[in-house]
Amino acid sequence: MEPIMNKSVAADLVVAARIRRGLTWAAIAEALGAPLVWTTAALLGQHPMTAEQARQVCDLLGLDDAVAESLSRQPARGADPALMSDPTIYRFVEAISVYGPALKELIHEEFGDGIMSAINFKVDFARRPDPDGDRVVITFDGKFLDYRW
Amino acid sequence: MEPIMNKSVAADLVVAARIRRGLTWAAIAEALGAPLVWTTAALLGQHPMTAEQARQVCDLLGLDDAVAESLSRQPARGADPALMSDPTIYRFVEAISVYGPALKELIHEEFGDGIMSAINFKVDFARRPDPDGDRVVITFDGKFLDYRW
Amino acid sequence: MEPIMNKSVAADLVVAARIRRGLTWAAIAEALGAPLVWTTAALLGQHPMTAEQARQVCDLLGLDDAVAESLSRQPARGADPALMSDPTIYRFVEAISVYGPALKELIHEEFGDGIMSAINFKVDFARRPDPDGDRVVITFDGKFLDYRW
Amino acid sequence: MEPIMNKSVAADLVVAARIRRGLTWAAIAEALGAPLVWTTAALLGQHPMTAEQARQVCDLLGLDDAVAESLSRQPARGADPALMSDPTIYRFVEAISVYGPALKELIHEEFGDGIMSAINFKVDFARRPDPDGDRVVITFDGKFLDYRW
Amino acid sequence: MEPIMNKSVAADLVVAARIRRGLTWAAIAEALGAPLVWTTAALLGQHPMTAEQARQVCDLLGLDDAVAESLSRQPARGADPALMSDPTIYRFVEAISVYGPALKELIHEEFGDGIMSAINFKVDFARRPDPDGDRVVITFDGKFLDYRW
Amino acid sequence: MEPIMNKSVAADLVVAARIRRGLTWAAIAEALGAPLVWTTAALLGQHPMTAEQARQVCDLLGLDDAVAESLSRQPARGADPALMSDPTIYRFVEAISVYGPALKELIHEEFGDGIMSAINFKVDFARRPDPDGDRVVITFDGKFLDYRW
Amino acid sequence: MEPIMNKSVAADLVVAARIRRGLTWAAIAEALGAPLVWTTAALLGQHPMTAEQARQVCDLLGLDDAVAESLSRQPARGADPALMSDPTIYRFVEAISVYGPALKELIHEEFGDGIMSAINFKVDFARRPDPDGDRVVITFDGKFLDYRW
Amino acid sequence: MEPIMNKSVAADLVVAARIRRGLTWAAIAEALGAPLVWTTAALLGQHPMTAEQARQVCDLLGLDDAVAESLSRQPARGADPALMSDPTIYRFVEAISVYGPALKELIHEEFGDGIMSAINFKVDFARRPDPDGDRVVITFDGKFLDYRW
Amino acid sequence: MEPIMNKSVAADLVVAARIRRGLTWAAIAEALGAPLVWTTAALLGQHPMTAEQARQVCDLLGLDDAVAESLSRQPARGADPALMSDPTIYRFVEAISVYGPALKELIHEEFGDGIMSAINFKVDFARRPDPDGDRVVITFDGKFLDYRW
Amino acid sequence: MEPIMNKSVAADLVVAARIRRGLTWAAIAEALGAPLVWTTAALLGQHPMTAEQARQVCDLLGLDDAVAESLSRQPARGADPALMSDPTIYRFVEAISVYGPALKELIHEEFGDGIMSAINFKVDFARRPDPDGDRVVITFDGKFLDYRW
Repeated sequence: MEPIMNKSVAADLVVAARIRRGLTWAAIAEALGAPLVWTTAALLGQHPMTAEQARQVCDLLGLDDAVAESLSRQPARGADPALMSDPTIYRFVEAISVYGPALKELIHEEFGDGIMSAINFKVDFARRPDPDGDRVVITFDGKFLDYRW
Repeated sequence: MEPIMNKSVAADLVVAARIRRGLTWAAIAEALGAPLVWTTAALLGQHPMTAEQARQVCDLLGLDDAVAESLSRQPARGADPALMSDPTIYRFVEAISVYGPALKELIHEEFGDGIMSAINFKVDFARRPDPDGDRVVITFDGKFLDYRW
Repeated sequence: MEPIMNKSVAADLVVAARIRRGLTWAAIAEALGAPLVWTTAALLGQHPMTAEQARQVCDLLGLDDAVAESLSRQPARGADPALMSDPTIYRFVEAISVYGPALKELIHEEFGDGIMSAINFKVDFARRPDPDGDRVVITFDGKFLDYRW
Repeated sequence: MEPIMNKSVAADLVVAARIRRGLTWAAIAEALGAPLVWTTAALLGQHPMTAEQARQVCDLLGLDDAVAESLSRQPARGADPALMSDPTIYRFVEAISVYGPALKELIHEEFGDGIMSAINFKVDFARRPDPDGDRVVITFDGKFLDYRW
Repeated sequence: MEPIMNKSVAADLVVAARIRRGLTWAAIAEALGAPLVWTTAALLGQHPMTAEQARQVCDLLGLDDAVAESLSRQPARGADPALMSDPTIYRFVEAISVYGPALKELIHEEFGDGIMSAINFKVDFARRPDPDGDRVVITFDGKFLDYRW
Repeated sequence: MEPIMNKSVAADLVVAARIRRGLTWAAIAEALGAPLVWTTAALLGQHPMTAEQARQVCDLLGLDDAVAESLSRQPARGADPALMSDPTIYRFVEAISVYGPALKELIHEEFGDGIMSAINFKVDFARRPDPDGDRVVITFDGKFLDYRW
Repeated sequence: MEPIMNKSVAADLVVAARIRRGLTWAAIAEALGAPLVWTTAALLGQHPMTAEQARQVCDLLGLDDAVAESLSRQPARGADPALMSDPTIYRFVEAISVYGPALKELIHEEFGDGIMSAINFKVDFARRPDPDGDRVVITFDGKFLDYRW
Repeated sequence: MEPIMNKSVAADLVVAARIRRGLTWAAIAEALGAPLVWTTAALLGQHPMTAEQARQVCDLLGLDDAVAESLSRQPARGADPALMSDPTIYRFVEAISVYGPALKELIHEEFGDGIMSAINFKVDFARRPDPDGDRVVITFDGKFLDYRW
Repeated sequence: MEPIMNKSVAADLVVAARIRRGLTWAAIAEALGAPLVWTTAALLGQHPMTAEQARQVCDLLGLDDAVAESLSRQPARGADPALMSDPTIYRFVEAISVYGPALKELIHEEFGDGIMSAINFKVDFARRPDPDGDRVVITFDGKFLDYRW
Repeated sequence: MEPIMNKSVAADLVVAARIRRGLTWAAIAEALGAPLVWTTAALLGQHPMTAEQARQVCDLLGLDDAVAESLSRQPARGADPALMSDPTIYRFVEAISVYGPALKELIHEEFGDGIMSAINFKVDFARRPDPDGDRVVITFDGKFLDYRW
């Protein structure tokens, strides 16, 4: 009896196969017919795939059933804290530290006492051309949930 | 000689005056002709205002010159870490922990080795009506900066 | 111009008045017509009260308008981390550490991928008589939210 | 001489076998005639099983004696702290941070100086249908222990 | 309306009065007819006194009613973490780090799965004469509580 | 050349052999003619044994010379911090947090400025029958050391 | 008897006076005839000034003798850790995290086993015009110290 | 399918080959025609190399294709925190703690509100002969980025 | 009733008076007839003085009885952790990190299983002239204590 | 291609060989003609040895070339933080916490603003016979370095 392959091991195999086969995350997402950020996050271990999605990805990448089994399992979510200081990710952390309290004020002003859900939630990634240098545009779109007793 | 009023003291006075006068953050931003998230963050101590902006805000809120002087000073940025576990702010922290590594992959795939700037950067806040419950839509829009030696 | 009274200062005044007037949390909740745990949490600074509720409580306890103003303000939620090691509170922390992963398994088995909301959520407190010693019975009742992109 | 299999290794094998055989936690608990949350927690390594219970589970799941030996051993309890930030588990942590001080007040008001035991303690898990979305209902039921010198 | 005096403020006043009046902790405990370690811990803020005990102590030490009110309040227990590295206290911390796992083994061997209660619990302090240097003898005496679902 | 077996590996082997042979810690201590808590702590890696003691234990438990060599080596003392939150061990941590400052006061009152040694020190473990439930009785007995320049 | 004014209080007064009098750090350094980074750091509390330098600065800024006394005292060096996450300072922290191991390799390759002194050390700050945007140029210049027994 | 070799494994192999072949970092940088600090940092895992650069380095050092593949991959940047207390690296950390706030003041005075980029950034390493002992000279040269909404 | 003056407040007053009166620590130690490091540590709050010593110091420095009372009280020992990163103190921390394990080996080789007491312990401070630069010589001299059950 | 053996692995092999061959650290230091504390620290991985020293040690201990190669490599210095709480090492940590601020005062009084170098530095270890129990005498001897811009 083997335990189920750890999702970080599966993610490393997905990344290796993706690169060696010359496939982009966008191409995989398109093949699956799934949103880009969702697909990337799922393959990195943050969302469970359906068995069908997992099989499709593994066929595309030439990975075996143990990887597919791992991809379809329920994850324990959250990144390794060491990754939070990678400069590309840290800029998001910094933005939350600088703008988080302002966003809290505006959510309460506009919606009342509650939160933006991080569960009924989607993230969009886009490139916006700009003559002064192209821009990364990330959209967080979450349902407002009011504190309701 | 008095030291310059601490920005968190100034922010507490701004918040108190804003509520007692019945003004919204949106109304203050409009009065200043400045973006909503920027204005809110600045009044909470995260951006320096020009002397003119600081004067305008203090006139609007009935606050004295010591507050205006504080608002126009260069801040040391970043929120009190204790605030990061307030549920409304924590959902952003959680979203970065869940989606940060995926966003890093996509930034590198689309732009190459580099980051989304958190300095040449703006944040937009909006409410999107939805029959299943209105949604909070936050957009991060930052210039891509490539690692350039 | 005075800043709004800090909610922990207001809570200390509520606690002092409650004890000196010989009122129980249950009596205050009943006077307000509000749930017991919600009322206690709100008076300790974790929920905003309506202006009317705040006025009622302050009338009952002989506290002035500055306390009422504070009670009706939007809080930044979360307890002082030092409190988490008080033995009465720590037992809850320990229970989450021991049973949290099992509850996660069961939530996913019964409902699928998602969470118990801590926002659309209520807590009930009761005493259950038992010949071997009466028991504390705490019920967490939160809406299931599925990960929905 | 082999050391006793680590309980987290045994738990990984139980989880893998459970999924591959298509068994639910509820089915295993029923087969054992033991409470649902207790059984799940025990199989994840938080409670020792009797030798008989361990044997039964391993028969059901097709696991060998080394797993049974591990399941019957005394655990060192407590989850990996990294798991505490998984969103499904974190909501419990957040609820304790928001409501813990209120529950402490109410325990003392109702019972006097003491705690809810986390040892003479049981946890119940249920699904409550609700037209606005079904709800997760968790009950903590612990004997009150008074500080007694 | 004044808040109730913080227990650490009351403790500082008790300590000052005790020294200036030349009273020992033992003398205070004897006057109260209460155990020595309990009395000392209570006056340092770790146990609530009855109103009568609090009055007696304040009479003995010449302290006013605000101190007595504070001493009779329910505490949030636990020492300032900075104190844990004071050498006199640290030796206990070190002893738990060195012998804690052995005591766990022996509790389980002798009693089964459970804990020594820290609530139904008493501590004794004594001096034992010894020709090689007198000894500090501390006894922890707690009821065994078995994990009982 | 093999490095000396790590003491935690040796401890795991001792624990496995002890259970499989049906020996108690008390029986091993008796066979060695050594105190119970000392023996248990030494076998868990907190004290070096003499070569003769190590040989005796390994004979009794059917363990090989590499284990004996490890048991006789000088340890680096102290438990894995993760173990400190196991409920059985945590109750000692909690007791030190609640009673440590009182014990410090009483040591200074009785002995003057100094500490209870944790080196010239012994720990006793006993079960005390009690009609309300048997009790765990732990005695710390350490030489007083005065600050002496 | 007053204690000596805390250096962070003195720094706040220096900053306030500097701004209100419209003086730059560069102008103050020039008036003192001292290096720019050294002067700024000293006035922020990181280096002791001579009594003469402290008097000169206080004359220039209209500050009283208590400030001068504080500026001439030996500091305990190091910034408030909270400041390390201000974005302007954090970029230096990030650079050390990214390039620190490479600099260590190069110091050892060029000089052998040792360090760049942070005591026999100076820091230079300059602006370098650049058509693609002016640049901040910081030079660390420290004596090599070899490990010498 | 093998995962891509971890960059820290690749770095260990580069270091071993470099030493055994008697090559300096400077010689490798020269062979690549790339800056010294950049090359060293890249080989330690902090920058991706082009496939061509990775091949050249591996030819020079006698390392196989798996190392080259690893060197050309996008890194997650940042050093192991344990390394930050190595004395050679710690002196940089200390310098930032002592001089960071002064550098922040001077950047704002000279450039306005913004930062020195750590992305559009280069580091230079040099030895400066000095009769009192040669000196390590490190230059940080980063583009100024102004906060621009 | 006033609480006893905090020892850090007393230390600040001692430091201020010492400087303003132009007295060295050495002169104060000599006046007391007490060792230099002991006297300095005691005045900074790490050792209790006798009432007579406290009176003598306060006479010498022109400080009032409240300071003397504070100096004669039992301390809670240990420095503010923030001070540990002051460069002058940090070098000791670094030395322990680099040489601590070696000193442990040598203590055990020479004395057997035990420790150097930090209680029956003295510290000496001296300046040793050296043509290459004078040296700081610190001697730790502590009684060996063997683990003795 | 093998990476260079990690210094902690080499240290474990040195320790095992030293014990099995019955050699003391003192004997090894003597054989090398090197100071005792330096030699012990170097073999534990804190100093690089010359190739000749490394070869000599490995001949003496019967260790192979891979160990010698490791011993001669540049280390990243500093002990595992977990070791800092071993009681034998912790007493040094405690001494720095208690006496560090006093030593800082005395260094500044005697030498001015600066530090005791931990690089141009040696440590001596000795046993001093004493009728009340022999003593461990550790001498830190470091060059004074003044802050020199």
